Amino acid sequence: MDESTLSLVLFSGTDDKLNAASVLTAGAAAMGRKVNVFLQYWALDAFRAERIHKDHGVAPEAGPEGLAAVQRHGGQHWSEIFRQAKDVGEVAIHACSLSMEMFGLEADDLDPLVDDQEGVVSFFMDVDGPVTFI
Amino acid sequence: MDESTLSLVLFSGTDDKLNAASVLTAGAAAMGRKVNVFLQYWALDAFRAERIHKDHGVAPEAGPEGLAAVQRHGGQHWSEIFRQAKDVGEVAIHACSLSMEMFGLEADDLDPLVDDQEGVVSFFMDVDGPVTFI
Amino acid sequence: MDESTLSLVLFSGTDDKLNAASVLTAGAAAMGRKVNVFLQYWALDAFRAERIHKDHGVAPEAGPEGLAAVQRHGGQHWSEIFRQAKDVGEVAIHACSLSMEMFGLEADDLDPLVDDQEGVVSFFMDVDGPVTFI
Repeated sequence: MDESTLSLVLFSGTDDKLNAASVLTAGAAAMGRKVNVFLQYWALDAFRAERIHKDHGVAPEAGPEGLAAVQRHGGQHWSEIFRQAKDVGEVAIHACSLSMEMFGLEADDLDPLVDDQEGVVSFFMDVDGPVTFI
Repeated sequence: MDESTLSLVLFSGTDDKLNAASVLTAGAAAMGRKVNVFLQYWALDAFRAERIHKDHGVAPEAGPEGLAAVQRHGGQHWSEIFRQAKDVGEVAIHACSLSMEMFGLEADDLDPLVDDQEGVVSFFMDVDGPVTFI
Repeated sequence: MDESTLSLVLFSGTDDKLNAASVLTAGAAAMGRKVNVFLQYWALDAFRAERIHKDHGVAPEAGPEGLAAVQRHGGQHWSEIFRQAKDVGEVAIHACSLSMEMFGLEADDLDPLVDDQEGVVSFFMDVDGPVTFI
């Protein structure tokens, strides 16, 4: 079993990918692994305080049948799964400062799940193990 | 050279990404690495026995010229490349139990390439090295 | 801090993902890590000499507001960020020979940023650490 930090670069902002990312985060945290999340682009946009619970769509490949399955399934919102992962384990969520600048965002615009913002070099200082891009 | 297990979380279900995933799996298996595949969402949907050989489309960015190149190229189907990778190396393919539930799938609905289903914590118990999300 | 090679499989060819990939490459190179890039499918297509500076679009999830933010932001082109990363660190960019064949490309068709072409087994011979798929 691997005990290194799981570094997740979250780029995509659709609900299906964010749900997959939250489940991987929760699974790794439950196994005692540190998880280091870096929010870029559309994932950062989805973590805006005013939008986090809105509908962020799913991947275009879903099709009507897939979308219906996702909606029927319900289950916990990905933001809630990230919250629980932070409660049970060592999970840090950082906003990419370049993406903050691109979207003209301030720290107050983000959901409190986001701990801080940092540049990509700071992100790599904490990398110790897999770097997974979602 | 790295000898750790390559853990692939397959999320996307389009033929271009599944082909890329199968080629990486075959390459890693040929180098003697264990490969541990976890099927979520649209990738799991693409491994249904009755759909695995159907057309699953390509990424929207392909455009007509890119799609034509993929179709003209032909080559082996990604399911066949996974099959050969399982023949030559140590490749396990697991269905994510949460995604099984979401799509209302039973083990019998899946292609025999899929070995079993498991939860995300079991998946992480076998993680030893990179965690690659496709 | 991890000192292993960062292996990036670039599959996607939209400007937002290529920009994210170039920033991760530059960040890793700045930390003294080797970066090993493998271009497949739409990412390879985007590195054609005659297309590298053209508009490659963004992910469909961007929406009009997101697209406007990206365009307004400007900043350096991802090809320039890759170029600088190659100047400051040890960054190799390989074209996947299967994708070259699929698109009917020759070495001369590619931007000089691309060092050579290789198969997936050769790619895995240099893998030592994370394998990140973008």
